[in-house]
Order: sequence, then structure tokens, then C-alpha cells
Amino acid sequence: MKKHNYSAGPCILPQEVFEKSAQAVLNFNNSDLSLLEISHRSKDFVAVMDEVRALALELLGLEGKGYQALFLQGGASLEFLMVPYNLMKVDGKAAYLDTGTWANNAIKEAKLFGETVVVASSKEQNYNHIPTDYTIPADASYFHCTSNNTIFGTQMKSFPKTNIPVVCDMSSDIFSRSLDFTQFDLIYAGAQKNMGAAGATLVIVKEEILGKSGRTIPSILDYEKHIKAESMYNTPAVFAVYTCLLTLQWLKAQGGIAAIEKVNEAKANLLYTEIDRNPLFIGTADKKDRSNMNATFLLVDEKNQETFDKMWKEAGISGIAGHRSVGGYRASMYNALPLESVQVLVDVMKKLEEVVKQNEVTV
Amino acid sequence: MKKHNYSAGPCILPQEVFEKSAQAVLNFNNSDLSLLEISHRSKDFVAVMDEVRALALELLGLEGKGYQALFLQGGASLEFLMVPYNLMKVDGKAAYLDTGTWANNAIKEAKLFGETVVVASSKEQNYNHIPTDYTIPADASYFHCTSNNTIFGTQMKSFPKTNIPVVCDMSSDIFSRSLDFTQFDLIYAGAQKNMGAAGATLVIVKEEILGKSGRTIPSILDYEKHIKAESMYNTPAVFAVYTCLLTLQWLKAQGGIAAIEKVNEAKANLLYTEIDRNPLFIGTADKKDRSNMNATFLLVDEKNQETFDKMWKEAGISGIAGHRSVGGYRASMYNALPLESVQVLVDVMKKLEEVVKQNEVTV
Repeated sequence: MKKHNYSAGPCILPQEVFEKSAQAVLNFNNSDLSLLEISHRSKDFVAVMDEVRALALELLGLEGKGYQALFLQGGASLEFLMVPYNLMKVDGKAAYLDTGTWANNAIKEAKLFGETVVVASSKEQNYNHIPTDYTIPADASYFHCTSNNTIFGTQMKSFPKTNIPVVCDMSSDIFSRSLDFTQFDLIYAGAQKNMGAAGATLVIVKEEILGKSGRTIPSILDYEKHIKAESMYNTPAVFAVYTCLLTLQWLKAQGGIAAIEKVNEAKANLLYTEIDRNPLFIGTADKKDRSNMNATFLLVDEKNQETFDKMWKEAGISGIAGHRSVGGYRASMYNALPLESVQVLVDVMKKLEEVVKQNEVTV
Repeated sequence: MKKHNYSAGPCILPQEVFEKSAQAVLNFNNSDLSLLEISHRSKDFVAVMDEVRALALELLGLEGKGYQALFLQGGASLEFLMVPYNLMKVDGKAAYLDTGTWANNAIKEAKLFGETVVVASSKEQNYNHIPTDYTIPADASYFHCTSNNTIFGTQMKSFPKTNIPVVCDMSSDIFSRSLDFTQFDLIYAGAQKNMGAAGATLVIVKEEILGKSGRTIPSILDYEKHIKAESMYNTPAVFAVYTCLLTLQWLKAQGGIAAIEKVNEAKANLLYTEIDRNPLFIGTADKKDRSNMNATFLLVDEKNQETFDKMWKEAGISGIAGHRSVGGYRASMYNALPLESVQVLVDVMKKLEEVVKQNEVTV
């Protein structure tokens, strides 16, 4: 039976990425060698790294605009540390928007480096919305935000205008929607949602913001050193980087971000429409801030849980159990999830409504 | 034609690791899902992480001896930073043995944290030997050494006795030879030599040495946090970790470290015997310190280079060009390289001798 994989990440990737990367593990570029056994400095792998870096900038519309793309290791969690190390001025401060768990983890690391101003937080409402009407201190070294909150199902639809560098953790919605990406000075994202296998981290950075913190940065955490080494300062996560190349090639063939955005909107509309229509379900995030990547919702009456869980499992759906911080359900609809899978979930939700009605009549 | 892959790393892994990991990318554990699309917190992947951590300790004979095994990201280069962050006491110092490029990179990061005593160095002799007769300061927080130097072809055959914690970078010879591993308090190793695909880093640490530096450690760099999270503090490099499990399972099936050590010794003996016998070649490292993993050697007369290069390429050999710091040739003979491949190289070296003799007679 076909699986409908709603995992929040690592998550579904295009089928051709699985097929081509598995083939490369057996025999890369018809070299009779595995992708895993060649030097990262071999001609063949340098070509992979060059292409994926260029393609990331191209898809975001950032070519020739002073940005560099890096594929590093350590996930967003290491970026929580690298950002203040590289950008927060000695005796300076940084401004953070608190929209959930990942923002909090970023704030925690920044505090080790200096004053960390939390400009706003939706913590008191269990992060069910994106705060507005906050002021960003003009003397902060940078402003940091999280574009999409996987756990709480919220997504920033717009970003504040400020004269200081804007840093954005886009781990869970990069390459999913059109934005003017030049409004950001640094974007980072773990690969394992819309980009590739876990183990690679994309960092997009405007070069002009670097080298100004006055700090001595450990080599391995220094963006300038990684740029100088063309993203090969140390051995990269070769396989994960290759899956990023395959996924971005797939995205380009789909028509790029503008094309996938339409599919993502169709998927999100289909599911949210059902959540709002079906009296058995209720969404947890404010409608205006709902994420097109992760829809979080609850059963109005928990007595239907057993039946619903049985039904979606029987339909081949996996990965929709909600995060413990919110409960209920979370349907993650990353780029590679087909509309068809969302239709299957919506059909199950409709069928649950029928079954419940039937039972009420019978009882 | 069969390839004889002498790449210095990423390098050859057992063929079954390529086959099984490629299969897992297509369909993991018959789940109809790819290894790349399942949650790292799924039952199936947690089982992988638990098994590989236990197996690493088992193979090293460190089970039940107060050690923890972690599979992290960032390579040895990130460990160069994590070691002083976790272990060098505030206002304390650390002792390092300088045996080459990687030791130097480790020293460079340590210097950001405090006094870094280089107890000895073979730099003046282009690192062609392992220094001896040095004193380790008894008041240092730890002593750091590199067990095998890929670039210079040297390997520590024994390790100093000291009362302070001993930290060893074993990136290029872990799991290749029997040692009393309890003499180390912290061992780290990038996966991409004897362990698996690039992107995972093994850290073996004796828990009792942690929590004593008096430093505030960023969460992502804190060994204690990684231990508490059972090596899942953040999303691990899932695929790379899985290849480590497959490789260690293979090693166990071969008979473990003691068995592979015999094969490694046979390979090294075969090649070094030829280097020493064949008048056309000369080894670069001191005989007593020669590495069983990476044999570095030169042609006595560079005029034979073109012929030799053509001959080994025709024999299906790849990856033996020497590092620019040493020149000549470097034959890396990691665990998965078969004895047969070394025989092919030795045969080529013998044939070169014949060809050269023939030419001399003809001329």
C-alpha cells in the first residue's frame, strides 16, 4: 500500500531523490565507485558542491547579489551558536523574536555572547500566533526570527523592516514559498525538510555583514573561513549534500519556488478548509498565522481518537501524531508531499464525521 | 575493471555497506519508507542509534567501564573546539602533542580557551616521526594527541602514561588495531575512514571527566547534554550513522578489531617490504613510526613518475597521489581495502622496476 508520509522531519523527499541517491551509493557517475568512497576533493564531488551552492542561490533569486551559500554540518542547532559568534558585536546585543521551541533554543545560545533582547513572545498563548507590534532596537547587531514553527503550526507571513541585519531560521519552510529573499542577510536551514537528508545545513549569508563582530571566532564556526574554503573547510556530509543537489534539481524541474508554492497552497487550503468545516476538528494556530507546512489540529472530543487513529493508519497515513507541546495532530506538508496524500487525509476526516453521525443515530 | 581504491578519506567501505545502505534509502526495514524520510525519533531509527552506540563500545572493549559513545556531527574539526570547551578548566591549560596538520588545527582552537602547551613537535622534520621524550605538565586539564597522521604516514605505537585525562583524535585509525582503550578518557573520530560515510563523528568519553571545566558550554557543544539526550540532542546525520552501524556490524562479523588488525598488518607489511626492497622507491616516515593505515613514499627518481602513474592507473588503482605537504604517493589501507588491492599495487611497483631496468639495458 502507498504510504502517505506526514513526518515532521526528517520527512518525505521526492521519490527520484531516493532512487538517484541510492544508485550513487552503489555507483556514482558511472565511476564504478560509490559516492561514499570518493574523496570530497575529487573532481566529481567538487562539481556537486559547486552546483548545489549555485542552485540554492539561483532558486532563491540571490545570484550576483553579494550572497554566498554554504552546506555545513551540525543542523540549525549549531547555527544557533554560529550566528552570535559571527554577528553579535563584542559588548553589543542581539534582538530575537520568540515564536516557539527553536527560537528559544537560539535565544539560549545567544545569551552566552551578550545582551539578548526578546522583542516579543507568544509563549503565554502556547505560541499559537506570531507576535506583532514590536520594536527592534536599532543598536542591536542583528534581528533573528524563525520563519516557520513546526511544533506550533505557525508561519511568519511577513517580516519586519529594519536597518540592522535580519537573520532567519528557515529550517522548515525554505524553498516552499516566494519571498523577497534579499530582505534577509543570513538564512539558515537544516536540510531535512524541503532540501535533503539530515546531516547538511544550508547557510545563505550576505558577505558584507561578516567580519564586524570584533570576536575571535573558532575556525570551524567562522563563516568567512567556510566561504574562503568554498564550503570545504572540512570534509562535508557528502551524501546529505548530494541529496540536497538532487532535491533542488527536482525543484527546479518542477518550475522552482513559484510553482511549488502553488502546490503547497493547494494542499494547505484543502486541509485547513476541512479542519474548519468538519465539526469534529479544531485548528490550534491563529488563522492568520497558519503554517502552510505544518497544520496542527485537535479532535474536539477526545473520545473519537481511537477511531480516528485506526482510520488514518488503515489509509496508509503515517507521522501525524502531534508534538507533545501541542497534542492532537500535526500534518506536515513539505514540498515533496503530493496533493493526493492530503486528499487521503481529508477523506478520512470526512469519513470519521460520517461514522460518528452513524453511531449517534444508532445509539 | 575492479577498482583498487586507496583514497585517504572518504574512502573504501565494505561492499555490503554500500549495498545495504542503498537498499535502506529505497526501503528501510521493509517499512515501504526510505531511511531518509522517517523521523529520527521513530522506533526504527532509535534502534539504529542504540545499537551503533553499544557496538562501538563493545568493539573497543569499553562496555560497562564508565564510557559513553556519541554519534555527533561536524567531524573531527568540531571536536577540536568541543574538547577545550568541555575539558579545559577556566584559567587552566592543556597539553598537546604536535604530530601534523590535524594536531595543529586542534592546537589552534585550544589556544582560544587558555594556555596550550605543545609538549613536543616534529614539525622541523616535516612530521616524519612521532616525538618522544617529552614531559606532560601534571597541572594541565588534559593531554591531546593524534593517533595516526594521514598526511605524513605516521602512527603512534604507544601512548604516554599520565595522571591527567588523555584525549585522542583517532579519526584515521580507529577500529584498525588492538589497544587498551581504557588508557584514553576521550576518543573522537570522523566516520569517513574506518567507520562509515562522512557526516558522523564518533565521540567516546569517560563520563567522570565531564562537568569539571567551570565553563558555560553552548548546548550544542556540551557532551553532557548529548549524553543525556542519548545522542539525539538534535537531528543526527541519520544516513551516515546508519552506515556506521553497518560497518561496525561488518567488523564484528570479521572477528572484531583483533581480526582486522591481522589483515591490516599483512597489508602494511606487504607494501612496506616492497617500498624498502625496490630501489626505485623510498618511504618518507621513520620506520618505527610508520602508519599501518597510510603509507607515504616517493620515487627516488622523478623521471619515472609518468610511467609509474600510467601503470597504476591502468591497473585500476585510484587515490594514491600524495598530499601536497609530502608529495609523492600515499597508499591508504583502511579496514575495507582488501589485501588483493595491495598486491596489485606491489605488482605494479615490481613491474616498474623491470621496465626501468629494461630501458636502461636498451639505452
